[in-house]
Amino acid sequence: MCREKINEIDVKRHSAAHILAMAILDLHPDARLGIGPVIEDGFYYDVETDSPITEDELKKIEKKMKKLISQNIDFEKSEMNIDEAREKFEKAGQKYKVEIIDDLANEGTQSLTNDVSEKKTVLIYKSKDFEDLCRGPHVKNSKEINAKALKITRLAGAYWKSDENRKQLTRVYGVLFDTKEELDEYNKRLAEAKKRDHRKLGKELDLFTFSDLVGPGLPLFTTKGTTLRDTIVDKIQTLQAKHGYEKVTIPHITKKDLYETSGHWDKFGDELFKVKGQSDQEFVMKPMNCPHHTQIFAAKPHSYKELPLRYMETTMVYRDEQAGELLGLSRVRSISQDDGHVFCTPGQIEQEVQNIVSVIREFYTSLNMFDEGKCWVSVSVRDSKTPDKYLGDPKNWDKAEAILEEIAKKEGFDYKKVEGEAAFYGPKLDFMFTDAIGREWQLATAQLDFVMPERFGLEYTDENGNKQTPVMIHRAIAGSLERFLSVIIEHFAGAFPLWLSPVQAVVIPVSDKFNDYGQSVVERLQSEGFRVELDDDSETLGKRIRIAQKSKIPYMLVVGEKEVADNTVAVRSRDNGDEGIIRVDDFIKKIKKEIS
Amino acid sequence: MCREKINEIDVKRHSAAHILAMAILDLHPDARLGIGPVIEDGFYYDVETDSPITEDELKKIEKKMKKLISQNIDFEKSEMNIDEAREKFEKAGQKYKVEIIDDLANEGTQSLTNDVSEKKTVLIYKSKDFEDLCRGPHVKNSKEINAKALKITRLAGAYWKSDENRKQLTRVYGVLFDTKEELDEYNKRLAEAKKRDHRKLGKELDLFTFSDLVGPGLPLFTTKGTTLRDTIVDKIQTLQAKHGYEKVTIPHITKKDLYETSGHWDKFGDELFKVKGQSDQEFVMKPMNCPHHTQIFAAKPHSYKELPLRYMETTMVYRDEQAGELLGLSRVRSISQDDGHVFCTPGQIEQEVQNIVSVIREFYTSLNMFDEGKCWVSVSVRDSKTPDKYLGDPKNWDKAEAILEEIAKKEGFDYKKVEGEAAFYGPKLDFMFTDAIGREWQLATAQLDFVMPERFGLEYTDENGNKQTPVMIHRAIAGSLERFLSVIIEHFAGAFPLWLSPVQAVVIPVSDKFNDYGQSVVERLQSEGFRVELDDDSETLGKRIRIAQKSKIPYMLVVGEKEVADNTVAVRSRDNGDEGIIRVDDFIKKIKKEIS
Repeated sequence: MCREKINEIDVKRHSAAHILAMAILDLHPDARLGIGPVIEDGFYYDVETDSPITEDELKKIEKKMKKLISQNIDFEKSEMNIDEAREKFEKAGQKYKVEIIDDLANEGTQSLTNDVSEKKTVLIYKSKDFEDLCRGPHVKNSKEINAKALKITRLAGAYWKSDENRKQLTRVYGVLFDTKEELDEYNKRLAEAKKRDHRKLGKELDLFTFSDLVGPGLPLFTTKGTTLRDTIVDKIQTLQAKHGYEKVTIPHITKKDLYETSGHWDKFGDELFKVKGQSDQEFVMKPMNCPHHTQIFAAKPHSYKELPLRYMETTMVYRDEQAGELLGLSRVRSISQDDGHVFCTPGQIEQEVQNIVSVIREFYTSLNMFDEGKCWVSVSVRDSKTPDKYLGDPKNWDKAEAILEEIAKKEGFDYKKVEGEAAFYGPKLDFMFTDAIGREWQLATAQLDFVMPERFGLEYTDENGNKQTPVMIHRAIAGSLERFLSVIIEHFAGAFPLWLSPVQAVVIPVSDKFNDYGQSVVERLQSEGFRVELDDDSETLGKRIRIAQKSKIPYMLVVGEKEVADNTVAVRSRDNGDEGIIRVDDFIKKIKKEIS
Repeated sequence: MCREKINEIDVKRHSAAHILAMAILDLHPDARLGIGPVIEDGFYYDVETDSPITEDELKKIEKKMKKLISQNIDFEKSEMNIDEAREKFEKAGQKYKVEIIDDLANEGTQSLTNDVSEKKTVLIYKSKDFEDLCRGPHVKNSKEINAKALKITRLAGAYWKSDENRKQLTRVYGVLFDTKEELDEYNKRLAEAKKRDHRKLGKELDLFTFSDLVGPGLPLFTTKGTTLRDTIVDKIQTLQAKHGYEKVTIPHITKKDLYETSGHWDKFGDELFKVKGQSDQEFVMKPMNCPHHTQIFAAKPHSYKELPLRYMETTMVYRDEQAGELLGLSRVRSISQDDGHVFCTPGQIEQEVQNIVSVIREFYTSLNMFDEGKCWVSVSVRDSKTPDKYLGDPKNWDKAEAILEEIAKKEGFDYKKVEGEAAFYGPKLDFMFTDAIGREWQLATAQLDFVMPERFGLEYTDENGNKQTPVMIHRAIAGSLERFLSVIIEHFAGAFPLWLSPVQAVVIPVSDKFNDYGQSVVERLQSEGFRVELDDDSETLGKRIRIAQKSKIPYMLVVGEKEVADNTVAVRSRDNGDEGIIRVDDFIKKIKKEIS
């Protein structure tokens, strides 16, 4: 990770945002500017114009920007009295800038000045005759920006201050890199991402659907999509069962008392779905499962001999995501969590985290996502500057942080100790994966929790007959199944590994005459536990193979006269093409080996 | 079913309710009487008294009743002008009777008089000096009542008119039979039911729990309870998979639009839990799954060649049951439905219902609940007197009703065609089971639905390229898992069949020295897929066997020196006691056979 390099390009992107504003003002002199920050790969600017900015104009804006860049424009910083600045922007009709200045005047000017003195000032950056309220930093001169590595990409609507009740502005997005090659790479990645879009593939592969009657953010999984989900869940649960995890079952609602005790009510109150029946009793839809699971632990007394207790459950939680932020399976309101909680003694933390790490390694290895360079681990510890932010005994923290780093080291992970990334209730290991087109995703996690067991008054009796508070470990292997599916559908472009494919093989008889034999092959494979279908449609053989290929089915087994006579199948692999004719039993051996 | 006999005893029970009122008035002359109807096995009377009726008084009330019965009291019927009756009861301070009379005056007197004439009258029954507003019929003389078969059983609180905002009266319950033997039988059944109470056993066997923080009617299932649930669900899903059922997955909430389209909004509006987030969008928790499932069907076009499509899903639905009606797992707010829906052509109904019936037969046979005399089937058809009540083409109804009866006949079921029991949308088969202590439960069902597919505009293309509306079949095998568990926990008194037991065997080493061998036996059995635990606690052997017996574990495998030497186990069966020493492999064979 090269922090400095990122900052340098971010400075250029920030300056490009100012040049974007200049270009827009050139085409729309009436434009009222909102904010123009840096984002991943680029920048945007929010603007309000009398005549709307159209898609067609994007090219024109880009061209104008490149022209401005070529003019070697200087970026000059100055400090201005806040009242003076207000007057200047008001006169220019920049009402959103005025609003920002008013907010600053009310809340203090720390964020936009270097000098927090009694005389309030703001920073202004000037490039040609364009002046913008801005904290900087910026390039010295526009010649530092490589115009060949710049592209204006798209438009979107965005509420002023992200408030649905305020005006919707137009957001103009751009990307900027250091070199033309990087831009080309980005464009390629974008085209690839578009081809792999899980919303498009989800429809093509018939995995999930949305209904206007049911509502946004609430996916319905078809039979194939459910097979995909269940196969993932089965895999994780089988791996975990080896380490003593046992399933529990909880309802999706609770009295709010549960979250008042856990402390989530204050923290997540707004994001919670409230539930109301006929009586006065108000319920809440659970946004997480840990508080419910504590209540199963709390239902009876425990001795140290019973610990660790390890619960697992795949269940939906509900979060009130804003409609505008919902996106396919990436961001939904009904979130299926592959959840698990361990209740253990402090002395058992190491073994339990080790178990979780083993499951994570084994699961992601089965997806070929654990290879060198594809995964790194964040050992997320306290911020040493703000020790008061963290609850629980500092000695336990010290020990736990050391354990996590030790495990990361022992496992040979590419790991980084990240200060300040711990939750207030405990340190954690976060697993970051890189997908087939280079995007990074935080998927698995193991988090220690020194706080929740105390909040719920959980206890066990130790060797000496004394009451003790257990430690809780939260862990996710796939995390949200919906988000995980969106990642792996795009990572594999729908061509899942054999063990995960909703349909693992399709048997295609060359003509009606061989349907019976085809059906017998299907049944033979199904009896071995494989997911196999017969395609005896009246289409041509070629068309049926193309359909299977488009459906990304790993194996197509063509059967005709010769195959019936010899009890064989002609194997065509999704990934390797024609693999020749083999006996059915040998095909079974082959795919069993491939899966294990 | 002997309807007439039931009516005769109900007349006696009704008269006993009047005698109960007389006895209460004798002890509490100030008592204001509510209503006193017949219920299963007996009767009750709701009363309001200045000094509360206590448990201790029940014996006294019963004694007084028996004394009254022995006085050979006549029951005399008379008709009385409604105004006159009002005056009489008002004078007697019977304000609840006055309220009933006022209601009758407002709504018509049909229900309490024989003669619906212009002159409104009510019927009065007189026994000694006690007069009660009553439709009858009653016994001629109290000597018809067998005082030896009478018992006053318990007290409860009950809101006047079941309205939480009205006064809570005291409900006094009694039972009455024809013979002393029947009362003895009832008492025995009651004692047995108490011993089998699933709430008590659920705690003892550690199957489920409730939390005050989560709320009433929202059970949390422990690891053992979840194993029980999952084993039932797996069994049903495996049986169904053979018939082409495939799993789908839906969220627990929906926009209310879904139920406006299905028609459930008008019908169930009050019982629905409403869900509200930050935005104006209102959601509803699903009280059933069929409307969601239609949306998966509707997501893409279908040809007749794809039908039938068979979806299955075990998922929780939510119903706002009143707090006072919640009872253990019998009545909950979070209801796990083992649900399934078939979408088929009219010509496929017979085969599909036949498939469902096969699954029901196989599932309940595995529980020994399908034997002769333990199950009967209601073929629920239209009420021929009100054909307009039913939606859909009468020709389809005729055909479907004939198919259902034909299947019931062909299967050799003890069946009854019950007129008027069909739903408005289609006829059905309801399966009624009798449990170990003689109680009858409606559990499985297969219901045709000619209406919902039309409401949602579902369609498929038939052989001729025309659009057709599919038929939907709703089916439940176990129904609500919670209710089903409450029934079978009590039916088996917690001693589940081997295949269903959360723990199938416990290995008990006679001393520490044999723990390793014990563990190896546990692992050997687990590797064969059995649920087995080791009990290496420091308790005596006798105590550990008693604990296992109390936990209703089917097999206890004791291991000591001899067993280690011979690779055997000493088998003790929950049901048959000592079964001798056998080789581990033979034990595996034995239990495999028992399960299949």
